[in-house]
This record gives sequence, structure tokens and C-alpha cells, in this order.
Amino acid sequence: MERRDEILHVAGTLFSQRGYHATSMRELARHLNLQGGSLYAHIQSKEEILLEVVRQAAERFLAVLQGLPEGSPVERMRALVRGHLRVIAEELPRATVFFHEWKHLSPPLLQEAKALRRRYEEGVQGVVQEGVEKGVFRVENVRLATLFVLSALNWTYQWYRPDGPLSLEELSEAYARLVLRALGVEEGGEDGEA
Amino acid sequence: MERRDEILHVAGTLFSQRGYHATSMRELARHLNLQGGSLYAHIQSKEEILLEVVRQAAERFLAVLQGLPEGSPVERMRALVRGHLRVIAEELPRATVFFHEWKHLSPPLLQEAKALRRRYEEGVQGVVQEGVEKGVFRVENVRLATLFVLSALNWTYQWYRPDGPLSLEELSEAYARLVLRALGVEEGGEDGEA
Repeated sequence: MERRDEILHVAGTLFSQRGYHATSMRELARHLNLQGGSLYAHIQSKEEILLEVVRQAAERFLAVLQGLPEGSPVERMRALVRGHLRVIAEELPRATVFFHEWKHLSPPLLQEAKALRRRYEEGVQGVVQEGVEKGVFRVENVRLATLFVLSALNWTYQWYRPDGPLSLEELSEAYARLVLRALGVEEGGEDGEA
Repeated sequence: MERRDEILHVAGTLFSQRGYHATSMRELARHLNLQGGSLYAHIQSKEEILLEVVRQAAERFLAVLQGLPEGSPVERMRALVRGHLRVIAEELPRATVFFHEWKHLSPPLLQEAKALRRRYEEGVQGVVQEGVEKGVFRVENVRLATLFVLSALNWTYQWYRPDGPLSLEELSEAYARLVLRALGVEEGGEDGEA
């Protein structure tokens, strides 16, 4: 791993565990077995590190949107749920920073983090919107339905652990079904339970 | 406000804004216009304050469960959604601590916080279970469906602000509808959109 990547990796873990404000550059250097000063050869400030971790997480989430299959809104939403949960499972520290610690940034870096988060939200909203336009999803308020779906997915970072009893596959399957039902998709065929 | 209540109120706000680890007792004393030492006349440790804030939040959430109306599972779930979102809207700092900062406690206080959170989760799960048993909710996995619902509700602490464009009433109504649909409640009558 490149030194810079290693710094970002360790910083993401510390920020997610103890919080951004509670993680000092000195502590970060100690975890990296670096002299405090030599950290600054790689990175300008703690805030720059935070933004970089947010960027890395955003890249993973945005890649989910880019990788959605052509197909029906149901298939696309199912792939989105699966992809989103996979990023959380595989990138727990970074996802935690993306969900929680970003708000400790100050302007203008804060604006960039907000813009990245908004871009992802809008992408998800686009998938919901498309489903509504095709008459497959039935929701009254696309914006609120999007936030509802994202909320349900995001919170898994609090409790889901890939090494626990529930496989990512099972979680994704169950959550996709709940999401689709919330979006008003009639059950039947592969979605049927009755 | 009693001095102790004031301490808990200010501490809850600081913990929720900057994080538990990043809030020192000295800073807390400064925000209260207290000498650092005199804080300890009211409170033993920072950790005790954290647990107390968690307890206060838990009390509000558990009161929602106790106040649920007798009635159909749909009515009970609707009241639960409304009550849960109201606690978040009215008690944002405390709710944030209940959702996020509690994990910085160490044993044995950590166990008490976990038990309080579990008690609430189990109460919500009871409402879901009851609906399933009465044949009103249709879910495959009651535990996962409960986590899904709680996730969708909890995350509102991240973005909902009561002084924003969306009233608590509107949010509750829309979220209750989404939750009930996710739980497989057939639409029609007051829930109908078609």
C-alpha cells in the first residue's frame, strides 16, 4: 500500500471509531509508526485527510450507480440495494465517515463533501423517479421516499457485520424486498410471499 | 432548571455536536460557567453524564411504546412512527447521543446502555410481531423488518429539522405510509393512493 493510502486507511478507521475531533494528528502518526512531522510530507492537514476519506467513500457509492444494469426499475433498485449494502459491508470505516464524520469539515471543504453526498442522493432519487414514471413504483413524494430508502440502507452501518450470522446476500435480499414494497411494487412472482 | 439537568442538557448538546471523546470536562464546565472542580459536586465522571443522557433519551422513546393506543396493528404502528419521529424532532441532541455516542461507554455502563436500546428495539419488534400474528402485517423475518423500520426512522436525526419546510405531521404521515407498505399492509381507504 502506498504511504498516502495507508494514512487514509488508518485515519478512516480512527475517525470512525473515536470521531474526527477526538483523533489527533499525533495519534494518527503513532498508529502509522511515523514521526509527527513526517506525516506532513504526505498530507497537509487533518481536514484534508477527512475530505479525502469522504471522497474515497463517495467514489465507491457513485460506482454503484454507474454499475446499475439496464432493465426494469425493480431490477435496478434491487441492484442498488445490493450494491449500497456491499459498500457498507466492505468499507465500514470509510462508510461511517461518509455518513457521520463529514459534517466536521469546515468551508470550503464542507461544500465539496455535501456536493458528493448530494450527487449520490440525487442518483438514487433518479432511480426512484424513473420507476414512478414507468408506472412501476407508486409513491406520493419521490424525495421523501428516496430519503426513506437511503435511511433504511444507511443505518445498517450501525449494526451489520459481514462476519455475523446474516450473510450480505440474505440481508440484501430481505432489504430489497422491503424497499420494493415500500415503493408500492405489487408482489407476485419472485417477490411473492403469500 | 436544576443544575444537574442543566449539566446534562449542555453535555448532550456538546456530545452530539462534537462527539463524546472530543468534549472535555473542562469545556463542559466552561459552557456552564462553572469552575472545573465544581462540576464534580454534581456529577462523578464524563462517562456518568453520557449514560445519564442515554437514560433520558431511552425514557422518552420507551414512553412512546407505553403510550401506544389499544387498537389495530396499523393504528399502533402509525402511532409508533409518529411518536418516534416526535422524540427525534424534540430531543435532537439526546436522540443523537442515544443513536450514536452511547458506544463510547465502557463496561459496565455500556451494558446498561445496550440493555436500554435493546428494550426499545424489542418493544418495536413486539408491535411488528403482533401485526404478523393478527395477519395484518406480512413479513418473512420479523427481526429484519423491525431493524428496517427502525433504521428508516432513526436516520431522520441526520437530516430532519422541525423548523425546515417539512412539518413533523407531514413527515410522520408519509413515513407511516412507507413503513406500513414495507410491512405488507394492503392499501385502500385512508392509505390508498391509486
